Amino acid sequence: MGGVSTAERDRVPKQDRSRATRQRLLEAAVSCLAEHGWAGSTVSVVAERAGVSRGAAQHHFPTREDLFTAAVEYVAEERSTALRALFPEGPAEDRRAVVAALVDLYTGPLFRAALHLWVAASNEEQLRPRVTELEARVGRETHRIAVDLLGADESEPGVRETVQGLLDMARGLGLANLLTDDKARRERVVAQWAALLDRTLKD
Amino acid sequence: MGGVSTAERDRVPKQDRSRATRQRLLEAAVSCLAEHGWAGSTVSVVAERAGVSRGAAQHHFPTREDLFTAAVEYVAEERSTALRALFPEGPAEDRRAVVAALVDLYTGPLFRAALHLWVAASNEEQLRPRVTELEARVGRETHRIAVDLLGADESEPGVRETVQGLLDMARGLGLANLLTDDKARRERVVAQWAALLDRTLKD
Repeated sequence: MGGVSTAERDRVPKQDRSRATRQRLLEAAVSCLAEHGWAGSTVSVVAERAGVSRGAAQHHFPTREDLFTAAVEYVAEERSTALRALFPEGPAEDRRAVVAALVDLYTGPLFRAALHLWVAASNEEQLRPRVTELEARVGRETHRIAVDLLGADESEPGVRETVQGLLDMARGLGLANLLTDDKARRERVVAQWAALLDRTLKD
Repeated sequence: MGGVSTAERDRVPKQDRSRATRQRLLEAAVSCLAEHGWAGSTVSVVAERAGVSRGAAQHHFPTREDLFTAAVEYVAEERSTALRALFPEGPAEDRRAVVAALVDLYTGPLFRAALHLWVAASNEEQLRPRVTELEARVGRETHRIAVDLLGADESEPGVRETVQGLLDMARGLGLANLLTDDKARRERVVAQWAALLDRTLKD
């Protein structure tokens, strides 16, 4: 198909480099937020952590709000994909495994980062609308995955609210894990609530 | 019973004044934390809000950590007392009313304030042990009240974890209410899970 010009040959690696830089910035932003909170998370700190110049960081993300909302969204998408990949067959027989995997979404660094962003947004007007919109989007997607993997029929009365309550519980368990390692208690609660859920969805 | 000395006469009102000042500081600290978050909450800001001198504030609470942990504890105790007072007869027939009242603990300014303190403690070493200890204490008391008011028998297998999961759900519902008014959805979730809980505890 004819010769490839020097400009064309250079373009692809440049796009790759740009994508890799963007990804490093997003991952550094989530770790930074999880470890240092909103007050300790600036574009400069993240750029340094990612090994990227401040100018390059600002080329990708003009504002601090752009960087951190994009970072939480990126990692949330990664986690959703990973969650679906755990159950490639779709609705799982073992509902306890699904409940445990859903709860796991709320106990890692992503939840910690999202929580910092969330709490900061409650007091900062320029952050609030963007985080509200982001949380709604991520929440809808998580709900959709939960319904699929649990094999829940939302046309039945109460089923939608049962699944919502389960995700609220997962979020509350994430909060309980913030200051102490709550794993042992969490596993007992997950076992019990998975059993309640299983019985309810079978009825 | 004999005469009262001038010193004795003066002591009581002084104690009253001191108690009233302390209470004003605690209430101002919770409102401040709920509205401005940890970064915006200093002893000076709270003293001004309470109409108390900075010196008087520091007499009551030598450090910022003292003031804000005492404030969250004080308001949590007030709320526990108010919750028990809603059901003076103890275990209530209407479990949905109990679940709704428990969930209400996590949707007001106290929860907002506690959440700010909690998230700040996850990144600040001098705050962390105190908040961890405080949350454990408040959590145990809330669990005790929930068991009493639900008439739950914790000697039955799974009942303890059912109640814990309910309180985790309540905390998650509180978080969902942070950026948007989530009341309508929350009421549907509460209705559904109260019905599931009722069935489970009756079995």
